[in-house]
Amino acid sequence: MFTALKESVLAANLMLPKFGLVTFTWGNVSQIDRRRGVIAIKPSGVSYDAMTADDIVVLDMAGEVVQGDCRPSSDTATHLALYRAFPALGGIVHTHSRHGTVWAQAGMDIPALGTTHADYFYGDIPCTRQLTPQEIANDYEKNTGLVIVDEFGRRGIDPVAVPGVLIAGHAPFAWGRDAEDAVHNAVVLEEVAAMALSTRALNPHIHIQQALSDKHYSRKHGAGAYYGQP
Amino acid sequence: MFTALKESVLAANLMLPKFGLVTFTWGNVSQIDRRRGVIAIKPSGVSYDAMTADDIVVLDMAGEVVQGDCRPSSDTATHLALYRAFPALGGIVHTHSRHGTVWAQAGMDIPALGTTHADYFYGDIPCTRQLTPQEIANDYEKNTGLVIVDEFGRRGIDPVAVPGVLIAGHAPFAWGRDAEDAVHNAVVLEEVAAMALSTRALNPHIHIQQALSDKHYSRKHGAGAYYGQP
Amino acid sequence: MFTALKESVLAANLMLPKFGLVTFTWGNVSQIDRRRGVIAIKPSGVSYDAMTADDIVVLDMAGEVVQGDCRPSSDTATHLALYRAFPALGGIVHTHSRHGTVWAQAGMDIPALGTTHADYFYGDIPCTRQLTPQEIANDYEKNTGLVIVDEFGRRGIDPVAVPGVLIAGHAPFAWGRDAEDAVHNAVVLEEVAAMALSTRALNPHIHIQQALSDKHYSRKHGAGAYYGQP
Amino acid sequence: MFTALKESVLAANLMLPKFGLVTFTWGNVSQIDRRRGVIAIKPSGVSYDAMTADDIVVLDMAGEVVQGDCRPSSDTATHLALYRAFPALGGIVHTHSRHGTVWAQAGMDIPALGTTHADYFYGDIPCTRQLTPQEIANDYEKNTGLVIVDEFGRRGIDPVAVPGVLIAGHAPFAWGRDAEDAVHNAVVLEEVAAMALSTRALNPHIHIQQALSDKHYSRKHGAGAYYGQP
Repeated sequence: MFTALKESVLAANLMLPKFGLVTFTWGNVSQIDRRRGVIAIKPSGVSYDAMTADDIVVLDMAGEVVQGDCRPSSDTATHLALYRAFPALGGIVHTHSRHGTVWAQAGMDIPALGTTHADYFYGDIPCTRQLTPQEIANDYEKNTGLVIVDEFGRRGIDPVAVPGVLIAGHAPFAWGRDAEDAVHNAVVLEEVAAMALSTRALNPHIHIQQALSDKHYSRKHGAGAYYGQP
Repeated sequence: MFTALKESVLAANLMLPKFGLVTFTWGNVSQIDRRRGVIAIKPSGVSYDAMTADDIVVLDMAGEVVQGDCRPSSDTATHLALYRAFPALGGIVHTHSRHGTVWAQAGMDIPALGTTHADYFYGDIPCTRQLTPQEIANDYEKNTGLVIVDEFGRRGIDPVAVPGVLIAGHAPFAWGRDAEDAVHNAVVLEEVAAMALSTRALNPHIHIQQALSDKHYSRKHGAGAYYGQP
Repeated sequence: MFTALKESVLAANLMLPKFGLVTFTWGNVSQIDRRRGVIAIKPSGVSYDAMTADDIVVLDMAGEVVQGDCRPSSDTATHLALYRAFPALGGIVHTHSRHGTVWAQAGMDIPALGTTHADYFYGDIPCTRQLTPQEIANDYEKNTGLVIVDEFGRRGIDPVAVPGVLIAGHAPFAWGRDAEDAVHNAVVLEEVAAMALSTRALNPHIHIQQALSDKHYSRKHGAGAYYGQP
Repeated sequence: MFTALKESVLAANLMLPKFGLVTFTWGNVSQIDRRRGVIAIKPSGVSYDAMTADDIVVLDMAGEVVQGDCRPSSDTATHLALYRAFPALGGIVHTHSRHGTVWAQAGMDIPALGTTHADYFYGDIPCTRQLTPQEIANDYEKNTGLVIVDEFGRRGIDPVAVPGVLIAGHAPFAWGRDAEDAVHNAVVLEEVAAMALSTRALNPHIHIQQALSDKHYSRKHGAGAYYGQP
């Protein structure tokens, strides 16, 4: 009944080891079917080698399992909070990819330093504030999502223009039109995180020109886009 | 007679090249059978490509060979000292994995900087003091184990909560419930060592929040754990 | 009719993932047939896995498509500007390879620090000035090429002796006798960019001796070359 | 007639891409047959993919080709100078491996910082002085060898105890009992170069304890060695 949805989520999860974003079972991808009001997500702690579409868990928006025998990812409540707050999101991914995690652990935004970044993210990739001990003690995973939503709201960032975030002391989340697009953005986030680390070592105060950021983002997004095939 | 034990030790040793933790024959894994009072360990200086279960050496707790034609790992006395002092250990691994070794050579603890670390290690991964010239001259490998035990005792660290250590000027050891679990922890130690190196380059004084460390460790360990499948 | 040209361009494009210079569809290679007045170039946004010679686009020097159903690379106007200004160029490649991009983002030349560099590039690999907002707003890709040409002219650099450049805030271009030779130089540029990053971290003011740079470049180039087979 | 010698040299050359020490055709390995007074060495600028034993060039100690249709490595005169000065050498390798080259470009010795280094190299791996313009202009490759010999002589280093060197502004050479052993040492040199780079970033003044260096070197070398199988 949810076969296509689960196949998409399985395929996107399998992209994580292919692109070197995960070690062991770290990382999880979900996709939403907004018409039917369900999400499909990776099971918790299951190896990528052994995973099949039947292991993917389908839940409703309250977090109740609709289909599947496995326990869903322990980060499910974060995914649900993001889908609820950001209606444009079709897929979400969480990884501990090395360089994205480095910036998250440092508690710093990934600065926009070049066109590789500007092609996918319009402006710096924000790092959230730390969660409070109270937010950690109760409903931790849901609060992780709410802190992301709060950060985007407070800074006035459009989650479509900046499809990723760093959780302070933790690691990145990224998202997109669907599960595959979310993983695509997670790969880019990891690459620009690595580049930014070394760029700032060479030149600590550099930042991209605003005009160049505007140009590259608009080459690929919006009405005037002219990158790729029509 | 020790077939299953030797097969487990062989399989865990073969994980070392798979996860990129070793160059040539560097690194060795052992597992203990406490009921029978024996350990099985990699032979010294034998290539991973050619190794079979018959090459794995079985020794009693005094270090006498019980089964096997090869000479055991030159680090066997370190393994035995750890098994004797820490009754909860089922498997032990020693590698010269690049980033773990970097912190060991620097003589510095790997600081807990994020949830990747907190999921597996409760607090900083300690680096031992240097061995004295006397400890190096006589019973060097046994003394390496005793210096680890001393470090955990002096700092009051539970080896189950912190399943790894750095030897100053040398490299890491890690351990776990069995040989495979030990290697699993060695992979994590290497990854968090790499992340910590770059994180501290970006932000020299950062450390994880205590509440976040507590939360992530307890998500995966102890009575309230809810990560993975039941 | 342009079969051999398109096959060469396809083969050179497929070298990019082989040598780890690209993520997804980033990067593009072209080759010119000066006798017939055409270039062949990678289509925009097409996956390397799926690309065939029929996807390669052939254009005249005014940028009009002569053969091919796909839209050409969005960077085509940069390639054309370089072919027009530098008559010795037979192939051009653009990538966002990690370490070359780091130096471009930092807005700094890749300094010549050793013989690996001197074997292929005679002197530092220049980083252009930033484009002005006006140059970005109109004919951006063509202006990217003109800024490269301007930089080489102003500094008096021969593009045959220095077969690559960094665009400030963007990434490298490299070139050569044909498409394959261009990619070869792009691989070297990436390797020397990585080496220079760490070399300068160890020794911030080091530079290669002039006599050594002269010697290594002339071992491989010009009338007195004696590297390789006759 | 020199079949076994050429097969050994071919096999050792093919280890270079396997262990990630070379890009394209950079790097070359030789082996000497002192009884017959010949060396066998890689041909200049030939791809590792296509190389066969018949491409390996055999030369006498004056550098005259004894067997083979290819031109020998352009670094042949350096190999010959080392074989002449250091009678214990059986094989020599030259690479531009990334991290070894970084230290060479920085003009700095690779400091002995841990037991990984001490297991193979007794003390720091020296970086030579720069060649003079005169040494570069005439007999450059031979002079490169003489500068190495001079450095070991002036510092009183035994080339058996320290089986490698860095040429200032250039890259490493390593050697051993035969071609395979030389490549083995080149792999270790590259690994300890990478580790030393990050170790010194964490702790700029650290060095290995002398007693630990002595112990690890003597575990693997000399009459009291007890590493590996008897």
